[in-house]
Amino acid sequence: MKKNIKNIQFALFCFLFTSILNVNGQESDHAFFIKEIYDYTLTQSKCYDRLYHLSENIGGRLTGSKEAAQAVNYTFNELSMEGVDRVWKQECMVPHWTRDEEAKVWVSHNNMEGSWHQIAATALGNSIGTEGKLISGEIIEVFSLDTLEILGEENLKDKIVFFNRPLDPKIIHTGWAYGGAVDQRVRGAAEAGKYGAKAALVRSMTTLIDSIPHTGVSSYDGVDVQIPGIAISTLDAENLSKTLKNNGSAYARLSAKCGMQPDKLSHNVVAEIKGSEFPDEIILVGGHLDSWDLGGGAHDDGAGCMHSIQVFETLLALGYKPKRTLRCVMFMNEENGLAGGKRYAEISDSLGEYHLAAIESDLGGFTPRGFGCSAEDEVFKPFLAALQSFETYLDPFDLSIKSGGGGADISPLKSQKGLLIGFRPDPQRYFDIHHTAEDRIDKVNKRELELGAAAITSLVYLIDQYGLEGIK
Amino acid sequence: MKKNIKNIQFALFCFLFTSILNVNGQESDHAFFIKEIYDYTLTQSKCYDRLYHLSENIGGRLTGSKEAAQAVNYTFNELSMEGVDRVWKQECMVPHWTRDEEAKVWVSHNNMEGSWHQIAATALGNSIGTEGKLISGEIIEVFSLDTLEILGEENLKDKIVFFNRPLDPKIIHTGWAYGGAVDQRVRGAAEAGKYGAKAALVRSMTTLIDSIPHTGVSSYDGVDVQIPGIAISTLDAENLSKTLKNNGSAYARLSAKCGMQPDKLSHNVVAEIKGSEFPDEIILVGGHLDSWDLGGGAHDDGAGCMHSIQVFETLLALGYKPKRTLRCVMFMNEENGLAGGKRYAEISDSLGEYHLAAIESDLGGFTPRGFGCSAEDEVFKPFLAALQSFETYLDPFDLSIKSGGGGADISPLKSQKGLLIGFRPDPQRYFDIHHTAEDRIDKVNKRELELGAAAITSLVYLIDQYGLEGIK
Repeated sequence: MKKNIKNIQFALFCFLFTSILNVNGQESDHAFFIKEIYDYTLTQSKCYDRLYHLSENIGGRLTGSKEAAQAVNYTFNELSMEGVDRVWKQECMVPHWTRDEEAKVWVSHNNMEGSWHQIAATALGNSIGTEGKLISGEIIEVFSLDTLEILGEENLKDKIVFFNRPLDPKIIHTGWAYGGAVDQRVRGAAEAGKYGAKAALVRSMTTLIDSIPHTGVSSYDGVDVQIPGIAISTLDAENLSKTLKNNGSAYARLSAKCGMQPDKLSHNVVAEIKGSEFPDEIILVGGHLDSWDLGGGAHDDGAGCMHSIQVFETLLALGYKPKRTLRCVMFMNEENGLAGGKRYAEISDSLGEYHLAAIESDLGGFTPRGFGCSAEDEVFKPFLAALQSFETYLDPFDLSIKSGGGGADISPLKSQKGLLIGFRPDPQRYFDIHHTAEDRIDKVNKRELELGAAAITSLVYLIDQYGLEGIK
Repeated sequence: MKKNIKNIQFALFCFLFTSILNVNGQESDHAFFIKEIYDYTLTQSKCYDRLYHLSENIGGRLTGSKEAAQAVNYTFNELSMEGVDRVWKQECMVPHWTRDEEAKVWVSHNNMEGSWHQIAATALGNSIGTEGKLISGEIIEVFSLDTLEILGEENLKDKIVFFNRPLDPKIIHTGWAYGGAVDQRVRGAAEAGKYGAKAALVRSMTTLIDSIPHTGVSSYDGVDVQIPGIAISTLDAENLSKTLKNNGSAYARLSAKCGMQPDKLSHNVVAEIKGSEFPDEIILVGGHLDSWDLGGGAHDDGAGCMHSIQVFETLLALGYKPKRTLRCVMFMNEENGLAGGKRYAEISDSLGEYHLAAIESDLGGFTPRGFGCSAEDEVFKPFLAALQSFETYLDPFDLSIKSGGGGADISPLKSQKGLLIGFRPDPQRYFDIHHTAEDRIDKVNKRELELGAAAITSLVYLIDQYGLEGIK
């Protein structure tokens, strides 16, 4: 692309106003205010610097860790801005899993007396360790949890089960591909343990073929026998599968030092600006403060936290006085328990509060595409229509409203019969780095992060102005 | 994001069909074929491997260079696929500018006898060199070409003019911000030379503040006195501007070895699949083969070339027989002359051809957002409406049609009164690496590149099926 683009600095303005042809005074005021939100966010916002601090200086923030506690204090201080009516820490007990020594996995292509080579591995969250021992056994490759029942104990006892169903690359929205494969990570070890297997190896949850293992939550809920669950990279999974096809058999040897500790006291962080006209209608914006430990939790979900704090910073910097009550919430323990999200809703319910809308950003800091939403059936249609009526203002920024979506932390608020909204950034790169050592600040583009913050701020502003009756 | 996403591998299908509720047999066939296009491209396409070869093994492809000639041969061979009716090289004379030794720039904060420190720099395309000498002089900072006339020869003679108007970060679409600043790069040296300046330093064309200089075309058209034009990084530009504010003056010393050589013979590469029903209606898809020399020209415009070749590969692999004639064109010399685009149109016009639609991909290999289009006024409205009628099929892939856009290489075809279409990928990262040493394969996400190829293939298919009358 080269010179023959004309100087069209005002083209955005023109487009904004041609796209809302029937402007009256109020509507042009709203369009101007949204432009001010974008201008401020793209030139003066602190969200990238805050994310740098959170992901690089504090680092990975496993629930119950000292880094998670540091993140609570840091965001509490950042949210203690002039103009915020109240900031508080909301106590909640959280599970405390620790990775004491990274998992090690060796593979032998011949037999258990053959030559072993080590492959990159990481223990899955909540997994037990190997109690200082080496576990070894023949590898049995499966592509679904259902296969375990077919194979039965006679084929699985003392074996190491290797779950190798890839994310389907043909699915455009990577989150759906993830959803179609993640049962292996969450339940693989629990289900394989029922048939006497010694351990589970799980292919990492990404379409990208590379040598980086991805951690993530696993669960032993409802089973008596716990065996270790360990992720290996997609490249090693592909190679191991080829070996099994070529050789007929392969063996693994592994160790891991990790496990659950007693629950710990931790906190959500909540900030509030009281509404002037409808103080009982709460508009929440939030992300989760905890992350996996391998990287810096920059996209997951440092970005969502910093998006949310930026909403408050921007609105206050612009001197905005909300009609409705705005809450910014840093949830604790989304990754392996959802204790914070549940606790927040429990307290809110007990106080008889009403969240008119709750917006969560938990899909990374990539270029915004819009928002997705959900609610109880009885209220959903008019709410969706209201949100879609805002597209007049959002379209110039390439944002659209879709049905479907929300967020794990805000999901317990559904029973309050407000609207749950998920920020929808570009989804293509997210799972390349999700739950890995690569999820660091260098993978975050400053401008893309800022555009996300501006998009969310604009939506909060519109809901605050119009409520969920939308533009008439 | 974690486990509570259900297995919804078929959700995309459902969405596809709920979004085209009034499906008849033909429409569901089209939806299925587009799904096949995506499936093939996301699992079997060679576009990423081809781009790797072009940008890393061949490398930067300055018009007239041996690398540009290699790229002609390479893509000629790649387009010689079974099922392609004809592949040919189309001769065209091209300008031949060479960078013989990279520009060097030193800055002194005090005076010309002070201590000099070197900053990163790169000669602008088509710039003259310094004829083996060092040029030095006081730096005069300006923010627009218009300022030169106000300052006049009395303030500019023997000075080094420093053009420092940044891209406006408040403009959402980075291409527009680029268009609002690039006059300084294109005409800075030419205009400053009119007032006796010795050289022009130009702030790099990106919103990103970093230490990497960006080259790009400059032009001396219509001026008698030529002076060197050299780009410096945005970070050095910011620092230099501060120095000028703090010290009141600053000085530069510079050298460059570069310049125009005699024109050379080069080629466009054209491949054709003849249409079975409407062979005289041509649908063109293309990108430009030449690039700047600093990097590998991976995004600009290796991606567009490989998108275009992939359209042919995919349609042929799926056994598709087009109704209309399909052309895949690798244009030569977009970056500093547009010789290939002009030559292609000239030959086409002389043969009385009609390009019903021409699609150019020249904004990088990022996640697709859709397409923009333009045409002669008299035909534009119905063509735009036709293209927008295809959104039924494109919306499930997050693609939309906008008014405005096309491509430099296809612009000379406008007079044939067909539709000019520009592929519209996410624009946020493009100018971070545009025309720099950083434009290499590691900045290209394989999946994003493939999604772009699938999007363009789908649009070619729809235009081939429906023409530009759209869906009735």
